[in-house]
Order: sequence, then structure tokens, then C-alpha cells
Amino acid sequence: MASGRFYMTCMVLGSLGSMCILFITYWMQYWRGGFAWDGSVHMFNWHPVLMISGMVVLYGAASLVYRLPLSWVGPKLPWKVLHAALHLLAFTLTVVGLVAVFQFHNHSKISHLYSLHSWLGITTVVFFACQWSLGFAVFLLPWASQWLRSLLKPVHVFFGACILSLSITSVISGINEKLFFVLKNATKPYSSLPGEAIFANSTGILVVTFGLLVLYILLASPWKRPDPGTLTDRQPLLRDRE
Amino acid sequence: MASGRFYMTCMVLGSLGSMCILFITYWMQYWRGGFAWDGSVHMFNWHPVLMISGMVVLYGAASLVYRLPLSWVGPKLPWKVLHAALHLLAFTLTVVGLVAVFQFHNHSKISHLYSLHSWLGITTVVFFACQWSLGFAVFLLPWASQWLRSLLKPVHVFFGACILSLSITSVISGINEKLFFVLKNATKPYSSLPGEAIFANSTGILVVTFGLLVLYILLASPWKRPDPGTLTDRQPLLRDRE
Repeated sequence: MASGRFYMTCMVLGSLGSMCILFITYWMQYWRGGFAWDGSVHMFNWHPVLMISGMVVLYGAASLVYRLPLSWVGPKLPWKVLHAALHLLAFTLTVVGLVAVFQFHNHSKISHLYSLHSWLGITTVVFFACQWSLGFAVFLLPWASQWLRSLLKPVHVFFGACILSLSITSVISGINEKLFFVLKNATKPYSSLPGEAIFANSTGILVVTFGLLVLYILLASPWKRPDPGTLTDRQPLLRDRE
Repeated sequence: MASGRFYMTCMVLGSLGSMCILFITYWMQYWRGGFAWDGSVHMFNWHPVLMISGMVVLYGAASLVYRLPLSWVGPKLPWKVLHAALHLLAFTLTVVGLVAVFQFHNHSKISHLYSLHSWLGITTVVFFACQWSLGFAVFLLPWASQWLRSLLKPVHVFFGACILSLSITSVISGINEKLFFVLKNATKPYSSLPGEAIFANSTGILVVTFGLLVLYILLASPWKRPDPGTLTDRQPLLRDRE
């Protein structure tokens, strides 16, 4: 029913997203001592893994639900529920990721929310909470008129894309900051580009690549749910079967 | 001829852009010892000022040339030339900003291009060079067909928006990194949020706000040059006179 090119792009996106999660987990496991939930630096290690998994990969996937040609036919409600549920799961991972860094800071007597990374990151999470709540209220609860939904839909899509961009910005500044912290007194400092630095920098570039591909599919690709009534005359659903 | 709301938004955008440049200049002048062109850290100080002025503020302004309702009527060529010229000026500032940091690194025997900030930043500049060259070749030189231009226009707009997002990501990671460097052994470290940290963090937030407003006007606002022939029946140019 849908373009083979779309599903090829989805496969590339799925591979990139999985690589982002695998890479960040491997960095924390192999170079940073692995994971724990005890307030130590091993608890901190959950922070980058959960933020990339939640605020970037799952958030990106959840944003693209309506780009699946499967979702273009039949009732929209199940897809709306899926969109909201995946975003709620992304938000839950994000909150657990925040708990990890806050408890690590408490345990190690480090101040909270002083760096630009943290200012931007927490703003992004607040925006995400507002976006989800407003989206739930307007697009899932039955009170809003079709007129209001049509008015708010482009704002919702644009703001959703902004939140993803801000998440990526927060992730990049976070990886950069972490590498300066941990390689400060290392035998091979960050500036000599040891294996860990190359690996973590590459993880950052992977996250950016994944994010840009999500934004392309979301904002610039031709794969969009057609407006009601235009499916047969404007949307080349069947022509794209090849 | 055009909506008052558009020009109000332009005024807000102009103020935000000016504040970005003023804030970053003030940070470098007041807290970081000012400017020089001698390979010292005072030469480095040109780097953030020129990157924000070129890759964010001027780049953002140049991107919005076709959103000016003035540009919707009459021949398009002068506006194309303005769009390309402003971007070329932005690129020139960017290159001078890179020279500043490379010469500082040479002078202080610091490795080049090791941090994630620098990897992403240099990638963004390369993308900018490709985008400008391809845009010049396809949209300004007379050989390309209307069909090719129409095909490439949305790609050009999307890729332009991506480059701005990547610039903002580079700027945020750069400000964050610089604050960790310079406040490492300070009486009041970054984590105690001294005046400099609050000021520089706020500069970062300003840059993000400016960038998001540019992206809104570019991608999501109704202010777009109408397709040829659609001006009278689809574009509410005159209705927006109020």
C-alpha cells in the first residue's frame, strides 16, 4: 500500500536509533564503569542512556506515527492513542533519567541546574510536558472543535520538532561536557582524542543524524496523512506501491 | 501591503538578534579581557562573537529574505541576489571566526578539532559551504530548469533550517565548554553560578530563542512568497493590510 522508499527510510531510521542507544550504553558500560541505582557515578550513567532513549529515539519514533501510511486509512483514534502513549513512555524514561542525575548530584554534593546544558535540558523537558498535556487536552479529549484542532495542529507539529531539536542540542552539550569532565586528568586527555573520545563524539554525531532524519520525515518529506476526502484524488498511495 | 503582525515579529527578531551579538560581545569584553588579533586568548574571543553573528544572527536574517512581503511582488532576481549576498557575508564572518580559533590553538599548542563541539561545528560550516554553492549553482546561475528548481527548493529550505539548528547546537555546546574551561579554578566556580555564568547561560538561551523564532517564520508561519499566479486568489496580501 505504501512506498517502498518510505519503509527503506524507516529501516535506516530504526537502525540509526538502535545504534544511538547501543553506542551510549556501550560508552557508559565499557568506559564509565556500568550502571547502578545507588547515587554514585554509576547511577549518573543512566542519565545519558535514558535521555537519548527517551527524549531523542523514542520521542522521534513517536512523532512519526502519522507518517506511517498504515495510519492514513480507517479511524484515526487508535493512532492518536499510540502517538500519545509512545510519547508518555518517552516522557517517563526522561523523568527517570532526570532522577538519576539529580540523585547523583545530591549524593556527591554537586549543585543542581547550573550549566547551560542543564538550563536548556530542563527547559526542553518542561516544554515536552506542556506539549504532551496540551496535545492530550486538545487532540484526544473530545471537547475541542475541529476548527480548534485544525488551528493548533501545525503549531503542535512545529513545537514538537522544536522540542526534538532542543533535545539534540542538550544531548550534544551533555556529551561534550561529560568528556571534558572525565578526560581532564586522564593519561590521554580529550585533546589527544583517545578511543573513548572518538567513540563518544561519534555517538553525538549519530544522535544528530538520527534527529535530522526524523525532522526530514516529519517536516519535509511527502509522506503525510492526507486531509479527509483528498485520499483518492491527491494522495498517490497506490502509485507508490512499486 | 503586509501584515502588521509580520513586522512586529521582525522587530522582536531584530531585537533578539542584536541582543545575542551585544551579549556575546559584552561577555568577551567584560569578563574575558576583550579582543586582539595576536594568537592570544583575546584573539580566541573573536570566535564566539563571529560565529554567533555569522552562523546564527546574519544567517537567520538572510534565510528570511523571501518572507518579506515586499519581496513577493516584482522580479525575484534582486531578492535572490540579496539572499545569496547576505549568506556570503555570514559565511565570511564564519570563516574569520574559524581563523580566530585555529590561530589561537596554533599559538597555544592546543590540538585542533578534538571536541564534539568542534566536530559538529566544522561539519555545520562544511554543510553551509555546500548549501551556498549548490544554491548559487541551481537558483542563481541561469542554466537550471524551472522543474529542477521546484524540485530542489524544499530540500534547500529544509537543509537551510537544519544548518541553523546545527549552528545553534554548536553555539550552545561551545558556550557550555568555555564556561567549564574558564571557571574551573575560579574563586566562584561554574557550579556556584557567578555573574559571568548566569550572563553567559542567558546568552545561550537568547541564541536558542532567536533561532526558534527564525525557524518558526521560515517553516511554520503563513508568511510565504506565493507561487506565481496564485497571488490574487490564494494569498491574503491585501486582507492583511490592517
